[in-house]
Amino acid sequence: MPIPAPNLYPPFNTIRLSHVCLNVSDLAASTKFYSDILGLQVTDANDTHVYLRAMEERGHHCVILQRSAQPGTVEVMGFKTFDEEDLDRAEAFFQSQNRPTQWVERPYQGRTLLTSDNFGIPLEFYHKMDRLEPIHQKYALYRGVKPLRIDHFNVFSPNVDESVAFYSQFGFRVTEYTEDEESKRLWAAWMHRKGGVHDMAFTNGTGPRMHHLAFWVPTPLNIIDLLDLMSTTGYVGNIERGPGRHGISNAFFLYILDPDGHRTEIYCSDYQTVDPDLEPIKWDLQDPQRQTLWGAPAPESWFQHGTRFVGVDTQDSTIAASPIIAP
Amino acid sequence: MPIPAPNLYPPFNTIRLSHVCLNVSDLAASTKFYSDILGLQVTDANDTHVYLRAMEERGHHCVILQRSAQPGTVEVMGFKTFDEEDLDRAEAFFQSQNRPTQWVERPYQGRTLLTSDNFGIPLEFYHKMDRLEPIHQKYALYRGVKPLRIDHFNVFSPNVDESVAFYSQFGFRVTEYTEDEESKRLWAAWMHRKGGVHDMAFTNGTGPRMHHLAFWVPTPLNIIDLLDLMSTTGYVGNIERGPGRHGISNAFFLYILDPDGHRTEIYCSDYQTVDPDLEPIKWDLQDPQRQTLWGAPAPESWFQHGTRFVGVDTQDSTIAASPIIAP
Amino acid sequence: MPIPAPNLYPPFNTIRLSHVCLNVSDLAASTKFYSDILGLQVTDANDTHVYLRAMEERGHHCVILQRSAQPGTVEVMGFKTFDEEDLDRAEAFFQSQNRPTQWVERPYQGRTLLTSDNFGIPLEFYHKMDRLEPIHQKYALYRGVKPLRIDHFNVFSPNVDESVAFYSQFGFRVTEYTEDEESKRLWAAWMHRKGGVHDMAFTNGTGPRMHHLAFWVPTPLNIIDLLDLMSTTGYVGNIERGPGRHGISNAFFLYILDPDGHRTEIYCSDYQTVDPDLEPIKWDLQDPQRQTLWGAPAPESWFQHGTRFVGVDTQDSTIAASPIIAP
Amino acid sequence: MPIPAPNLYPPFNTIRLSHVCLNVSDLAASTKFYSDILGLQVTDANDTHVYLRAMEERGHHCVILQRSAQPGTVEVMGFKTFDEEDLDRAEAFFQSQNRPTQWVERPYQGRTLLTSDNFGIPLEFYHKMDRLEPIHQKYALYRGVKPLRIDHFNVFSPNVDESVAFYSQFGFRVTEYTEDEESKRLWAAWMHRKGGVHDMAFTNGTGPRMHHLAFWVPTPLNIIDLLDLMSTTGYVGNIERGPGRHGISNAFFLYILDPDGHRTEIYCSDYQTVDPDLEPIKWDLQDPQRQTLWGAPAPESWFQHGTRFVGVDTQDSTIAASPIIAP
Repeated sequence: MPIPAPNLYPPFNTIRLSHVCLNVSDLAASTKFYSDILGLQVTDANDTHVYLRAMEERGHHCVILQRSAQPGTVEVMGFKTFDEEDLDRAEAFFQSQNRPTQWVERPYQGRTLLTSDNFGIPLEFYHKMDRLEPIHQKYALYRGVKPLRIDHFNVFSPNVDESVAFYSQFGFRVTEYTEDEESKRLWAAWMHRKGGVHDMAFTNGTGPRMHHLAFWVPTPLNIIDLLDLMSTTGYVGNIERGPGRHGISNAFFLYILDPDGHRTEIYCSDYQTVDPDLEPIKWDLQDPQRQTLWGAPAPESWFQHGTRFVGVDTQDSTIAASPIIAP
Repeated sequence: MPIPAPNLYPPFNTIRLSHVCLNVSDLAASTKFYSDILGLQVTDANDTHVYLRAMEERGHHCVILQRSAQPGTVEVMGFKTFDEEDLDRAEAFFQSQNRPTQWVERPYQGRTLLTSDNFGIPLEFYHKMDRLEPIHQKYALYRGVKPLRIDHFNVFSPNVDESVAFYSQFGFRVTEYTEDEESKRLWAAWMHRKGGVHDMAFTNGTGPRMHHLAFWVPTPLNIIDLLDLMSTTGYVGNIERGPGRHGISNAFFLYILDPDGHRTEIYCSDYQTVDPDLEPIKWDLQDPQRQTLWGAPAPESWFQHGTRFVGVDTQDSTIAASPIIAP
Repeated sequence: MPIPAPNLYPPFNTIRLSHVCLNVSDLAASTKFYSDILGLQVTDANDTHVYLRAMEERGHHCVILQRSAQPGTVEVMGFKTFDEEDLDRAEAFFQSQNRPTQWVERPYQGRTLLTSDNFGIPLEFYHKMDRLEPIHQKYALYRGVKPLRIDHFNVFSPNVDESVAFYSQFGFRVTEYTEDEESKRLWAAWMHRKGGVHDMAFTNGTGPRMHHLAFWVPTPLNIIDLLDLMSTTGYVGNIERGPGRHGISNAFFLYILDPDGHRTEIYCSDYQTVDPDLEPIKWDLQDPQRQTLWGAPAPESWFQHGTRFVGVDTQDSTIAASPIIAP
Repeated sequence: MPIPAPNLYPPFNTIRLSHVCLNVSDLAASTKFYSDILGLQVTDANDTHVYLRAMEERGHHCVILQRSAQPGTVEVMGFKTFDEEDLDRAEAFFQSQNRPTQWVERPYQGRTLLTSDNFGIPLEFYHKMDRLEPIHQKYALYRGVKPLRIDHFNVFSPNVDESVAFYSQFGFRVTEYTEDEESKRLWAAWMHRKGGVHDMAFTNGTGPRMHHLAFWVPTPLNIIDLLDLMSTTGYVGNIERGPGRHGISNAFFLYILDPDGHRTEIYCSDYQTVDPDLEPIKWDLQDPQRQTLWGAPAPESWFQHGTRFVGVDTQDSTIAASPIIAP
């Protein structure tokens, strides 16, 4: 199945990914991980929720830690729309796709539409979020990996072709993709709204499950600093893969796991994709450099482990794993 | 005069700045500067023109060097529109502003509209440009400062309030600005389309003149490499200011001059500005850290020198220079 | 006067510079500067003294802050000898030079010889200092500029030829030097014991006064981090010069002033000088790139300001300042 | 067996490791690897030998490529002595150890003593080598990983205790070591002369064989640049391990293989070890972080593969491999 043409005039305008709500078992342990180690700033905290933002963000939160009886699951992925009316247009779109929709109350957010994608991933859309003072020049606050902003989500999909087709309808555009040369099926795809390589990526596997969320950092040296810090403060076991450079996206990367197993990518070296006529880059599933340009294989866990969306059943992938299994 | 509200639904959709055509005296000397020293890639060259692109760009050119009897002037600044129809909408808009418009032939570009802004800066808009193969992972080609993409233009304006008002009409949004607290006049403003701090910036002074064009590079270490290279290959006199960090934009910067005096900024550490409700950051003209966060003053030349647009008369600024004159 | 040949078999064996004792007015303010901002670790503190070490050092202290009625003066510069007997040999040497010598008690140090050089700079030599646990892999402790070790001293000398001759006698070797082509007098010289560019440097001017002490850091990015931190925590006025690269020594540098005016250099990119037949590199006083490879001039204060050694009279330089005065 | 006390007054004074001669099958292919990819500078070349130096070195060569019928073997490892007389003292020492000695002619070197260590590793000592002009500030010459200097050798030894005892006699000092807690045998040891972590390291295994030679580079970003270059110019298969940080030595590292299988480490983040009373750091063989601070295991080849010294028989290690085999 070929890559669908981008829909340049989508039914509603999504600006970018915005935030994720993660279900965790121990709020203090998770806060320590995301705040002290990773370096996000706490913007609010109570007995059940901790809100955090990255250093250049002015919206109230990009990560919400939620104390839960189902830790290690993802509650919802959030996106920001261009204007208020886009929320109503989004409601109409998801209803037309026979997806459930409802308006929900979210602290620090304006009107928020809760819905889900074709495989049931809970998505919420909002336009207004409380805006905070800039802190990107308060250098005394920087710590950990010095995360600048949330960059993207990556999810396991049991059918990447269908996921790409679904998100293409509302304007997500493919920047790079991996195709199985034999079946001509998509193995993985990277789709964006905000002008970088991706806001949302899909990779073949039992799903839907979150593969990872990602933060953008200034330079590879910040990632090296994080590795040094984690490996000498009791978190060496939370380092899963990297550092390395992906062939796909050309990103310098590191993958780490939080105390409940949610995976985070630390990421730099993205490129700009605002041109509407940007040609997607195609990778062959047989090319091992698409995963790691430098050749080092990813660990098995990286292909198998993900965190489920709370209450959402998963399906096995519809593509049999090829001998060199890889997202 | 307050900052105008951004026009979120502009009459035509400009995606980003795209390229500049610089008039030069010695094509070989300028090519050496932009290609061997700076690190741009030559995509075509003939007796009168040399075309170059940066490492992650797939459009044919971001800089055109044009052999000219009026070296040290700028021929035109180019912008890319979202679609083909935006060109016609742009024509209608500029005509409504009593600006001259004409359709011109440009090698490697599709239909191209030549017009000018309220102070006469020659602008051209196109939608299609020849697309080239990706080279961002051909690491053997990287050299010089490893420029990834053209980032922005900065021009002297005799009336920044009027420049900002003009560009605001077609959707440029202010991200940061400097205000003279006494007169409440704008001293400088940074405006974007593509989701970074700026595509176009205006600074008070005799104008219109180009202050600089800018390239985005991966890390400050690339800028240090360029300084080492220039200072040991006969170009130490072409280093004008930096390295340093601007308060405004938070950019790590270096300013250099080409053989004809055109100024280029090398730039990293931008931030993302896609939110339509992004609040512009205001700086006080009396705050010296807005220019250099670290305190070092800019040299006099940086405030005085610019390169004229060919055939365009300049006007003195309408704001008397304050004691601490500074863009 | 030519550079003296190195004395490869000196009367006693000095391993390296070791520490400095700085007289300060406000122990809390100075501790904040050296510990919180610069990133040294406090190893002991009482009402009158604070001891600090850098991250890879295992000796007890490299900086001693001493509360004093004569703040802004330097108490003494310390050096470590190869063995215990070298102390007695040093005593004999300095006595042979008609320099005063005495054995003094210093906390955390073994037997310590206090003496002074030919212009009266107070020097102390010891062999044993309390050794502390390694902390260079305790990455949670790193902050500020991440200083790894004290690197060198630099002093104003009223007669650099004589200073170089004096230190050459006990084995300091010249790595680079600046000569006034007309008078054939030394303008400045860099001398080492430990195998880097310098342990001690001399520069022409009213002296003896300390020009600066220096710390070695891993990469230029650490220096950029320090600049960002200082300029947003109330220390922008303490930034004096840089960042830049010296022609001499090839060091990437930054100069900052502590609350009492003591100057510190942050330094990286040294080279190895252990070869006994290493040829000193000669620079011409007329070459501005010897100071800053990239061409930017140093501020006037950098040539004029230094901190005196407590109780030591200074003399004017015996070389008339050339038009382009510069150390 | 405990670590022997350092011999601070050795029978002869070795300054540092100096160079290695590698036997290769295809002089052009090896030259391309070491010069174009790695970035060493060719200082002389003929039909049978190519000489190279690193960027801050002023000695004529640090690597000699020798066309050979026994490619993939090492001809000799070279060391520089403090003075000419040290060569005669070295001859006496090695004769006293019943090691063969002879004076050999080496191009560009003065009087050269060829001998071998207790396991037969061919060693040569010289004092004088042709000195070349400094090129460390000729930044246009820098390429590849920007190697600054040869840093150390690492060899497989069938009995590390005996190797350490042998080198200790002539003044090599242990900086870090790994001990098998059960047998109290040394598993690996790092020994230096020049004031860094090592000039020579020993690791348990079939030996003697060269494990690797190493080059010092300025920052981790240079290593990332090399990875990007190698992986896109046909050398992805030559990348063996890394990037990562060793627990031991705290070095940021990368291991690559040349066309004949000789292993090179690219290395930065060393620390200074000139103190004669520096305490060696002990690591437990059971601690996986001693190898990779960040936890990633080394590939099997890294424990097994080495290159033999030409004409020298190897012996199996006298320590049975523990379950977690590792040098």
